[in-house]
This record gives sequence, structure tokens and C-alpha cells, in this order.
Amino acid sequence: MSDSHQNAPRESVQESLKRVVELLHKHELVESLVNKQDMPRHDLVQQLVHKQNLAELQNTLDALHPADVAYILEALPLDQRLVVWELVRADRDGDILLEVSDAVRESLIATMDTAELRAAAEQLDTDEIADLAADLPREVIEELFKSLDKEEQAQLQSALSYSEGTVGSLMDFDMVTIREDISLEQVLADLRKLGELPSHTDKLFVVDNKEKLRGILPLKRLLLHNPEALVSAAMSDVPVVFNGNDKASDAASAFERYDLVTAPVVNSYNKLVGRLTVDEVMDFIREEAESDVLAMAGLREEEDMFASVWKSMQNRWTWLAINLVTAFIASRVIGVFEGSIEKIVALAALMPIVAGIGGNSGNQTITMIVRGLALGQIHPSSMRKLFIKEIGVSLVNGLIWGSILGLLAYALYQNAALGAVMTGAMILNLLLAASMGVFIPLAMHKFGRDPAVGSSVLITAVTDSGGFFIFLGLATLFLL
Amino acid sequence: MSDSHQNAPRESVQESLKRVVELLHKHELVESLVNKQDMPRHDLVQQLVHKQNLAELQNTLDALHPADVAYILEALPLDQRLVVWELVRADRDGDILLEVSDAVRESLIATMDTAELRAAAEQLDTDEIADLAADLPREVIEELFKSLDKEEQAQLQSALSYSEGTVGSLMDFDMVTIREDISLEQVLADLRKLGELPSHTDKLFVVDNKEKLRGILPLKRLLLHNPEALVSAAMSDVPVVFNGNDKASDAASAFERYDLVTAPVVNSYNKLVGRLTVDEVMDFIREEAESDVLAMAGLREEEDMFASVWKSMQNRWTWLAINLVTAFIASRVIGVFEGSIEKIVALAALMPIVAGIGGNSGNQTITMIVRGLALGQIHPSSMRKLFIKEIGVSLVNGLIWGSILGLLAYALYQNAALGAVMTGAMILNLLLAASMGVFIPLAMHKFGRDPAVGSSVLITAVTDSGGFFIFLGLATLFLL
Repeated sequence: MSDSHQNAPRESVQESLKRVVELLHKHELVESLVNKQDMPRHDLVQQLVHKQNLAELQNTLDALHPADVAYILEALPLDQRLVVWELVRADRDGDILLEVSDAVRESLIATMDTAELRAAAEQLDTDEIADLAADLPREVIEELFKSLDKEEQAQLQSALSYSEGTVGSLMDFDMVTIREDISLEQVLADLRKLGELPSHTDKLFVVDNKEKLRGILPLKRLLLHNPEALVSAAMSDVPVVFNGNDKASDAASAFERYDLVTAPVVNSYNKLVGRLTVDEVMDFIREEAESDVLAMAGLREEEDMFASVWKSMQNRWTWLAINLVTAFIASRVIGVFEGSIEKIVALAALMPIVAGIGGNSGNQTITMIVRGLALGQIHPSSMRKLFIKEIGVSLVNGLIWGSILGLLAYALYQNAALGAVMTGAMILNLLLAASMGVFIPLAMHKFGRDPAVGSSVLITAVTDSGGFFIFLGLATLFLL
Repeated sequence: MSDSHQNAPRESVQESLKRVVELLHKHELVESLVNKQDMPRHDLVQQLVHKQNLAELQNTLDALHPADVAYILEALPLDQRLVVWELVRADRDGDILLEVSDAVRESLIATMDTAELRAAAEQLDTDEIADLAADLPREVIEELFKSLDKEEQAQLQSALSYSEGTVGSLMDFDMVTIREDISLEQVLADLRKLGELPSHTDKLFVVDNKEKLRGILPLKRLLLHNPEALVSAAMSDVPVVFNGNDKASDAASAFERYDLVTAPVVNSYNKLVGRLTVDEVMDFIREEAESDVLAMAGLREEEDMFASVWKSMQNRWTWLAINLVTAFIASRVIGVFEGSIEKIVALAALMPIVAGIGGNSGNQTITMIVRGLALGQIHPSSMRKLFIKEIGVSLVNGLIWGSILGLLAYALYQNAALGAVMTGAMILNLLLAASMGVFIPLAMHKFGRDPAVGSSVLITAVTDSGGFFIFLGLATLFLL
């Protein structure tokens, strides 16, 4: 992992993006001229202009931080993206592939042959190779593996052994370890010999001869403490340590709560196996948050903005299919009451209101509960209180909004009984929404499922079908 | 700002929460016994048990990191929360108030008098006082201000002058500054005299005698470089610098992209006014992500899980009211076609399917576009491509799902024309969803509004009313 401050930004990345797009347009203009005129007299001049444009583009790209190049690649439609990707210096390919989103990485890797891929991956640390591994052809991984030394091979195997969402999948191997029986002066001398420290090094890890973690030595203590003191006297206990199999989300919460920059990762025998850094944790938090938002809209994964229609459909169809099923069930509930609707056609116009408001209210409840569960803040003794509160809110809401709607229905159709049915149905559907809004995520949690995924679909299905059933059922009972 | 590693966790915060809840239950049990027996013979024994419980609870709390106490306070119903809050050592009140959510902070501050509040705030740094300022009574702020020295007063004023969502509102004043004409050895000696470095110090800021930022000296360079060298020779250019008025979200992206731990903040004359640290940025990212999720469910702000019914209603009613209006409009669209529904009652059962699938498909499109806009990755030349892609996806989806639904409708009602109308309406409503899904966020962005807020309500309103209108309109044209 190189020093993160190389090629750092003088201008904002949006400005860089604008400049790249301008240069691409110039380039495309010249290309189309050359193509149109089919080997004209001036082609030498035009080829020169052409080359000059590309050279300027290449210089712009070379001056950018890999993360900024990644950002620009993501913002470009596929054809322009590949023009830019061709111009990126080969020794930066690996760093940039690490930074782009999964979908865009796929589109870039598809254009590279095995030799190029191996060259790109060879620039990377073993933990970074592991991050790319899922997208690389098997033969590339195998060849890479052979080219590594023993220690690196062990690291790569270790990194690949942790499944996604664990601390092990986020950790790196750039930890600096020291023994406790040497002086701080000696540590400093050793570090100076090393000449460079890995990025984000805020502490050194003190280990014994079996590499078991004994303590930590914060960099600032190394700076400020008496240089003649021994490490054992200057070091502190390890405040936060993770196991490689711990959930990454728990580690992320710990980083947030205790404001960590790095933390050691050990195996079950307390042997130091890696370290977790705040930059990886921050990326993890952002990705989790994004995938939550995407999942709520029924997008299975992050989608390349310029993906083909076919790829987009694959990403989106599951949710639409599920929704079709729930909508169909709701439609069948209405079907049962077609006789009632035939007699009082106003029911058809009013029923979506009851279902819609129920869905919204249920989603509010479920969002609160899912959040509490995700934070681990809901414990058995508080459940009853939460349930009572949500029932209370929905009862008051039902009385208020139900009455307003009842009056509106009465005003529209001059039918007091219809207004009363409307009010009653609203109250009942909001109560249903509140109880299911508490029950669904708790049940999913109990059965070991992630309540964030699909809760919203389920509650909407319940409040739609339930809303139609309650409203049309009440109407059938009292109005016919 | 104290060293973040104090009172760091030995057990997970969930375990601490469980233990606190158990102790609270014991405490409540004893309390209820004492109350029931109305001064019994054994009251001395019981009071002892009582005291012992509270003492154990207090010890547990004292051993916890402030962030963990905050977490536990958030997870407790109001009555238990206040018991715990009473037991927290007064000198930790300030740190804990900083960590809890806005809603819970309000519930805690409501129980404190001005003297307690002043005492709590006095423990804090000026930038932290500024964070609390909005929740403190005016008189407390004024008294606090008088108790500060000149430099701190200037800092507090500066911190308060930046509006929410700016870099200035997140920065702190714990930067260590040095001059460029001294040797690294001298810097080290000065730091040793200081005895402590602020948390997250990964670099020192090099300023001239007017406090203008000249460069940075990474801590590792201070460690590894030749100690006799001058700061001017060892320092680097400032890779990333923010202005206090920059948007916090842009700074957060920069921290993620360039893997920063700290960055300097300057005013418009390049004078160093503060620094931004990764822990504040991480909190900001988490809060933004949460408020996005809450906003999508129509919760105006983070809600205390155990808020009163009345408070919860205030947080939730806006969205329900807006939704009532859009649902009412959709209902009126149906009202226009009551004559058609009276003749073909199957329309009432089928129409919610068309509206529902349209809403889902539209939300998928809008989520993609809002995300692209938030990242600044959508530029004018790519809009046409995005639009064509979304139209393409919705056309294919319309053909596939529309045909399936058309066949289902035909199977259910033995009416081929009804099936054809169903298919046609699905295709048209999905096209409407795609075009509005692109258009709405772009228009909101153009007029300087945040497209993330309310886009989803708008698209659902359009696809509901639009879906009913298209389906019932086509049916009226072709089936009657």
C-alpha cells in the first residue's frame, strides 16, 4: 500500500472530470473527421492534432490520484471509459481496479488479457490481490500465487480464507511489530533503517516470539517518551482487538465509537495476523449504507450507471417479480369483493387511499425497529414498550387521518355510512401496519435473517392486501 | 479532546447493555418491594441491598467508554435512562452528551439545571461546546463564554459561525503548528516539553508568522528523517486543504478517496483556522447515511426509540399528510372513471397492479440517478445516454411483465381485449416511470434542491395517478 498522499488533488475531482470529458470530445471530433473524409490530404495534420489530444489526456490522467481516475471512469459511458482506460499507465491499473465499483471493475477487466491482468495485480499487496480475486480468472490467480514468496503466499491464503463481511476480509498485513525487551531508542533506530512506515501507522504492535499480541506502542508515545525506556515500560494494553472472523459491521461500530485509526487483528490463539485501518472501515461503512439504499429500491447490487439494458434488467428483475406477486395477491383480494364494488363503485376510488397510508405508516415503524435491531439496542425487556408506543402512534394517527378521510368521503359521496367505514378501515389498517411493523423485523431477526432486506416489501404487501380486505370487508358488512 | 483509548472496551457493548439492564431490574424489584411494604421491619436490609445494586451499577458505568454509556442510554426506555443518567459521574456528562443522538440528548438535557449543564460543558473543548450549543439554554452559553480565555472565545465564535453541513462545523482546534526554520530535533524537544499530542495527530502543520499554512510535516517523517534537518527541508506540500465553508460532504468524499486521517482547514486568506479528523468525518458519513434512510421512510429526523407518542407523531406527520394528498389525487383520478368501473368491475381489481409495478420501477430509476447526482458523476453529455438506457430497460420490462400480466388478466376474466389493455397500460406506465425517474431528480438538482429528499414521494405520486389514468383511460377507450 503506497503512501496515500501521492498525486493528491490540486483541483477538485469534478473539475478533472469536466476536463477529461472536454478532451474526449475533442478527440471524438477529430476521429469522426478523419473517418468521414476517408484518408484525406490533410490526414497528417489531423493525426498530429489527434495525437496531441490524446497526449494531453494522458498527462491529465497521470497527474490524478488513482481514486480520482476511478471516479472519472465510473462517470463515463462505456465507449469513453475504455478510451480513458487504454491511456492509463499500466503500473497504475491495479490501484485503480481496487478503487472502482464492482460493476465498473467488471467492464474494465473484460477488456484485459491475462498478461495485463497479472501485471496489474503484481503491483498490489497480498490483501489487495485478495480483494480483486473474485474478479480475476483462475489462471491469473494461480500464476500470481507462484510468483509470491512464502510469507506472501501465506498472507494471500489467509486473506482469501475469510468470507465477505468479516474483519479478515478487510484487514491488511502492513503492521509493524516490535519486541518488548528493547529500548525505544532501538525501536527508532530500527524504524529509520526501514526508511518508511506503512500508511495509517499510528501505533506499533508489541508481540512475543510466538507473535502473540502483548500490547501496543502508540507512535506518539514513541516520540514523547524517554528514549531509554524499554518498550515493555512504555507500551499500553491493547484496548480494542478483533478476531479475523468477527463481523466487519461490529468492527466498524467499534471504530466509530472509540475513534480508532488502526486496530490489531488476531486469530483464536491471540496470534497477530493483520491489522484493520480506518480507511478500509470508512469504505465499508459507505458501501453498507449504499447497498441499504439500493436494496430498499430493489436493486440487487451497485449498478454501473452505463450498464447495458440487459445487465440492468438482471439487477432489477427480482424485486419487480416479487412485487408482481404481492400486487397480484392484493388484486385477488379485491377480486373477492367485486360484487360489492359493482354496487358501490365509490369503493374502488377510495380503497387505494387506505392501502397507501397504511403502507407508509408501516414503513415508518419498520424503519425504526430495523435501525434499533441493527444497532443491537433492542432487548427483550424494551420490546413491550416499543410495541405499545407504536400502537399508540398508529391509533392517534388513525383517529386523526381516518376522521379527515371519513369527512372527505362523506363530502364527496354524501354517504355518512361510507365515511364511517373509511374512518374505521383507516384505524384498523394503521393498527395492522404498526403491529406488523414491529413483528416482521423481530421475527426475521429471531430466525437469523437480516431484517433490513425485504422488510419493506413484506410490510407493503401486508398493508396493501390487508387494507383492501379491511376496507372492502367493512363496506360489505355495513353498507350492503 | 481526551485520548480516545481511555476506558476502552474489554467486553462488547451489547454485553454491557445486558448487564446494566439486569442491574436495573434488580434495582426496580427492590424499589417496588420497599414501596409495597410501606416502611417494613427489614427496611434497613433492603435499603442496603438497594444501595449495593446502585453502587454496582455505578461501577459498571464508570468503567465504560463515554460512547458506550451513550449507546446504553439510547437503548433504555425513558425511566430507566434517567436512573442511569443520574448515576453517571458529573465530569463525564459532557462527553456523553456529545455522543448521544439529538433526540436522546434532548431528553437528558431536559432533566439538568443550568449549573449542571454549565459544569458538563466546561469539561469540553470549544469545538465540542459549539456542537452542543443548539441544545443549551442561552444563559448557559453566555456564562460559558465569559469563563473562556481570549483564544478560546475566538475559537468558539469561529465554530459557531459555520452553518451545519460545512467543514467548519466539523473541525476542531487541536492542531499542532510549527515554524519551518527550526530543526526536527528542536520540534521533537518542543513536543516532549508539551508532553502530549492531540488524538489523531498524524501530521504537524507548518505555518508562517501570520499563521498562513506553508506545508505539513507527517509524524512518520519526524520519526524517520535526519533529526538535524530543518522543517523546511523535511516538510511536504499540503495535499488536501479545506476551507471552513466547504461542504462537509465534499470533504467526506475527499477523506474517503485520499484515505486521510487529518486535514488542515483554512480561511479565505489561507490562514490555518482548524483541522478536520477522520473520526468526525466518519460520524458525519454515518449520520448522513442514516438520515437518508430515515427520510426515505418519511421520518423527519432521528427519533428516540422511546419517544412519547406525541413526539413521534410530530416526527412522522408531515410525510403522512403529503401522502394523503397524493393518495387523494390518485383516488380522484379513479373517480373520473367510476362509470367505466361500474361496467367492467375487473378494472378495479387490476388497476393497483399497474400503479404498483410502475412505482417500483420508477423508484429503481430514481435511486440510480439520485446516486449519480450525489456523487457529481452525471454531466450534461451523459444525460442523453442515461435517459435512453432507462427508457430501454423500462420498455423491455414493460413488454415482459406486461405480457405476463396481460395473459393472467385474460386467464382470470376470459377477456382478450382486457388482457391487451393491461399489457399496453403496463408498458406506458413503465415508460412514464422511467422518464419521470430521470427527469424529477435532474430538475430538482437544476433548481438547487436536494434530489434525495422527496424524489421517491413524487415518483410514486406520478406513477400511481398516471397508472390509474393510463389503465382506466385505455380501458374506457377500447373496452366500452
